[in-house]
Amino acid sequence: MENSPHSYIAFEGAEAFAREQGLETVDNSYFITEDNIGMLKLAKEANTILFDYRIPDTCSALAGADNHKNGMVMNGLPISIYAPETVGCAVVDSNGFCASATSTGGLMNKMTGRIGDSPLIGSGTYACDVCAVSCTGEGEAIIRSTLARDVAAVMEYKGLPLQEAVDYCVKERLDEGFAGLIAVSNTGEVAYGFNCTGMFRGCATEDGFMEVGIWE
Amino acid sequence: MENSPHSYIAFEGAEAFAREQGLETVDNSYFITEDNIGMLKLAKEANTILFDYRIPDTCSALAGADNHKNGMVMNGLPISIYAPETVGCAVVDSNGFCASATSTGGLMNKMTGRIGDSPLIGSGTYACDVCAVSCTGEGEAIIRSTLARDVAAVMEYKGLPLQEAVDYCVKERLDEGFAGLIAVSNTGEVAYGFNCTGMFRGCATEDGFMEVGIWE
Repeated sequence: MENSPHSYIAFEGAEAFAREQGLETVDNSYFITEDNIGMLKLAKEANTILFDYRIPDTCSALAGADNHKNGMVMNGLPISIYAPETVGCAVVDSNGFCASATSTGGLMNKMTGRIGDSPLIGSGTYACDVCAVSCTGEGEAIIRSTLARDVAAVMEYKGLPLQEAVDYCVKERLDEGFAGLIAVSNTGEVAYGFNCTGMFRGCATEDGFMEVGIWE
Repeated sequence: MENSPHSYIAFEGAEAFAREQGLETVDNSYFITEDNIGMLKLAKEANTILFDYRIPDTCSALAGADNHKNGMVMNGLPISIYAPETVGCAVVDSNGFCASATSTGGLMNKMTGRIGDSPLIGSGTYACDVCAVSCTGEGEAIIRSTLARDVAAVMEYKGLPLQEAVDYCVKERLDEGFAGLIAVSNTGEVAYGFNCTGMFRGCATEDGFMEVGIWE
């Protein structure tokens, strides 16, 4: 983005810019696989929005009638969840400079033109001189809660340390939405939080320490 | 947006949704006027991004060489400013419910696909149970500062009243960018702030009080 005057470019313009900058891109046909076509068909039949195209055929959440019973909704409409495919990263260097980035699997059977939280500064992704944050989960809930920025805002304005700020935001800022986040502070603290069943995550430091987790 | 499961829809998808919902839309050719073509030509010749298509031909900022002297930059590239055409609104009702909306004239000679702050929840537009905020100015600076959400966050987390929160955010959150905002609190306070020369604004209450302003 240092080669653009703008902070946010989307759709065809973003793809053209990526190609100009020498990034690898693929034709949309790359994503049209037998699996994806099958999942989209199931999603349409169930009149549901899917978080993840890897949902197994046997997943009970795909039964249309069950969607309305499990109480999971997005802005009032029923959704099915398996495991969000977001890949996010929050890093801090030895000078305390923080950065974050978020890639997302998006939603299946969403409306054309829908943008989620991942590319929105302050929603799914945020970094400043205090901390860096990357979120995953129900994009609409994360947008409503400006979740990533609020972790930093709670640290800056309430003076809480990183993990307490993360816990506060997951508990107080998310409404009915399910989401999680990873974060690092400028002093090298590492934190995470989520209000769903689990969140795939990992942590690594320069000296070789590594840790992964799924559940609480 | 109550008729969509999503919080954010852009480009063709947003236009299709607007038409479905019965909103009036116009063909893009509506915006291709002689004035606009002339302004775009001038902007391209000056290799500058323009905030507003109503910039008069005599505006000195249009002289390419001057752009680099006046020191106004967007993410490091020179820009010319006349008067942003944003129309924003922040309201509170007798129950203390707050709402805001922002429409924008956008930029001229921007990159294809550029999205500014106006449609981004937390950047150019934000409302919660504490206050409602609408911003105007250099979109990229407003996005970097998550300006609208931060007014609310400063009230919530630092406990400042509305005008102090607005002043704090304009002073502390905006970096080199020029911007302004209007805001109302859930108790009916009205506030504004900007770090540029002036900002067109008005205020009206149910009992007939009206006030307008341009300068400090």
